[in-house]
Amino acid sequence: MTTPNIPQRILMGPGPSDIPPRVLEAMARPTIGHLDPVFLELMDGVRDKLRQVFQTTNETTMAMSGTGSAGMETVFVNLVEPGDTVLVCVNGVFGNRMAQVAGRCGAKVETIEKPWGQVFDQDEVIATIDRVKPNVVAIVHAETSTGAHQPIDKIGAAARDAGALFVIDCVTSFAGAPVKIDEWQVDAAYTGTQKCLSCPPGLSPVTFSPRAMERVAARKSKVQSWYLDLSLIGQYWGSERVYHHTAPINMLYGLDEALNIVLEVGLDARFERHRAMHALLRDGLSALGVEYVSQDGHHLPMLNAVSVPAGIDDAAGRKQLLNDYGIEIGGGLGEFKGKAWRIGLMGAAASKRNVTLLLAALRDMLG
Amino acid sequence: MTTPNIPQRILMGPGPSDIPPRVLEAMARPTIGHLDPVFLELMDGVRDKLRQVFQTTNETTMAMSGTGSAGMETVFVNLVEPGDTVLVCVNGVFGNRMAQVAGRCGAKVETIEKPWGQVFDQDEVIATIDRVKPNVVAIVHAETSTGAHQPIDKIGAAARDAGALFVIDCVTSFAGAPVKIDEWQVDAAYTGTQKCLSCPPGLSPVTFSPRAMERVAARKSKVQSWYLDLSLIGQYWGSERVYHHTAPINMLYGLDEALNIVLEVGLDARFERHRAMHALLRDGLSALGVEYVSQDGHHLPMLNAVSVPAGIDDAAGRKQLLNDYGIEIGGGLGEFKGKAWRIGLMGAAASKRNVTLLLAALRDMLG
Repeated sequence: MTTPNIPQRILMGPGPSDIPPRVLEAMARPTIGHLDPVFLELMDGVRDKLRQVFQTTNETTMAMSGTGSAGMETVFVNLVEPGDTVLVCVNGVFGNRMAQVAGRCGAKVETIEKPWGQVFDQDEVIATIDRVKPNVVAIVHAETSTGAHQPIDKIGAAARDAGALFVIDCVTSFAGAPVKIDEWQVDAAYTGTQKCLSCPPGLSPVTFSPRAMERVAARKSKVQSWYLDLSLIGQYWGSERVYHHTAPINMLYGLDEALNIVLEVGLDARFERHRAMHALLRDGLSALGVEYVSQDGHHLPMLNAVSVPAGIDDAAGRKQLLNDYGIEIGGGLGEFKGKAWRIGLMGAAASKRNVTLLLAALRDMLG
Repeated sequence: MTTPNIPQRILMGPGPSDIPPRVLEAMARPTIGHLDPVFLELMDGVRDKLRQVFQTTNETTMAMSGTGSAGMETVFVNLVEPGDTVLVCVNGVFGNRMAQVAGRCGAKVETIEKPWGQVFDQDEVIATIDRVKPNVVAIVHAETSTGAHQPIDKIGAAARDAGALFVIDCVTSFAGAPVKIDEWQVDAAYTGTQKCLSCPPGLSPVTFSPRAMERVAARKSKVQSWYLDLSLIGQYWGSERVYHHTAPINMLYGLDEALNIVLEVGLDARFERHRAMHALLRDGLSALGVEYVSQDGHHLPMLNAVSVPAGIDDAAGRKQLLNDYGIEIGGGLGEFKGKAWRIGLMGAAASKRNVTLLLAALRDMLG
């Protein structure tokens, strides 16, 4: 019955991020039943707080019982019927994943692509919507594999005009940069708990517009996933409280506390802290000659994708950071494997202490 | 930012069950990365311990990142291709759920049914296998909605002879009664953490035989769920360690510790404690004139489905148990709604203290 001792890391990778003690303590509260009146009250609070961070009034806002990828799948299995056309913007791992997931729902998938690290011009996306006439258009707001921060404020209105639903992946941006669901006319969005929320992984907050829910209600075919079927889960999160599955009680304690922390400080102050720490890191990296691989002017504050510093071996360097300094950063994925590092400044990890230590460690290593 | 105070309940419902402090403390350990070498070591330990409790040598044994229903869906999306015939034995909510999930995978679903609370005669199931010639035959080992304990030791061999895969739902029996995957020739099984493992809900341990994995490898169509695709997830839990999704780190700390507790005491002693506490409860209920709704000789030790005591109102009685005694029991589902109570004796909740208190409370209430 060996169990390794769990070290105290500094989590500056692409997620999970550092978790505040308050959230870990909340996770350890006594488990109660998923239909206990006290738990239902906690769920109502989580819904309300999620709406504030999503900046939405969407009734259908809740946390799916899986990680961010389960949230992605929730969106596509519910909104797509076999034969529907889904337009996916692909400029990294997660856009590509959306295309795969939509394809497995029987969608006719159309993609437009950009080189990794680049963002799409919104007008180009809108022109493609007009040409392809998709049922759904999907884009990644914060591409965790490339560090690119995609502007998305204009696409929703154009999608609406074209009769398409507008879907965004905001796994990495949520609670670290503005995600304005209602203002941007987003019809469905999904995120994860382990990024800027600074909660352990295991839940996927999602939100769906009334327009999206009309599409769900008008489906001719059953949702292919029973586990992720909104028409069933909605009856548990909604006032009916019909048993669907046993919610991950203690994970929801953690999410609730993580949301409390976000809202106590306020969204604007939280976003500003992420920007300020990003600027501090960027200046420090620049002084070390380290370049961003994401497009200038479109760097994500919470996910800094940079070239592996000249003179440092990718894997050996990351191992040294972990073993000598207790710092986890992420390696590159896909096209950036071996070439890029991904330095996260997510939630509680976006601190002057962390940035200062990482820069000092890199200076040591570059010797 | 209201968060309700979480009370200390005594969880004697159909799950979640009481969680030992050791498990809650484990959940609050610092989060580390899903590719951290220490976390990978913990995952290897979890796999090994799960194999011991499943009584299997199956290589493909792991915890899916969702609750028990996600485990159910994992089994069907991976083993079933559109047009396959799936024979499902239905005698309660969870057999019915298996039929629905298989249907959403495009299966031709054949069912055999028994009245709620009854078990199937294995020879009858085997005769149906010979008649229907299914690709997959599925049965619930421990029907949480009815308290029926289904004998399943002979079906696997017959399924194998007929070229069918044998699937079991052991959500409620796992770690509370013998589940002998290899001896019973089970090809795929799923369970949950929140029943006899006494770990919070949020993970679904699954195991697949080499024969099942050959079926997966020979698929002509893609698995309809990307999130639950064994060929992808297996590369993360296996030696390749390829990133698929961010595992629920802290939930796995909890599962690991829950498994430690199970294995320290030993399976036989744990099963015996469940039987002994069941006998104590049954005798006490009998003295109060409370009858089981499950078939005589086939009561689950960990889930006692009984008639609502004469003279007590269903909902009001359960509310009184919760508010006055801090005890949660479960109401009836489906056909048993309003008619049956479900009293769990799962994992840490299967204690003399709990049984004694519940019986004393019922005596008080019956006045």
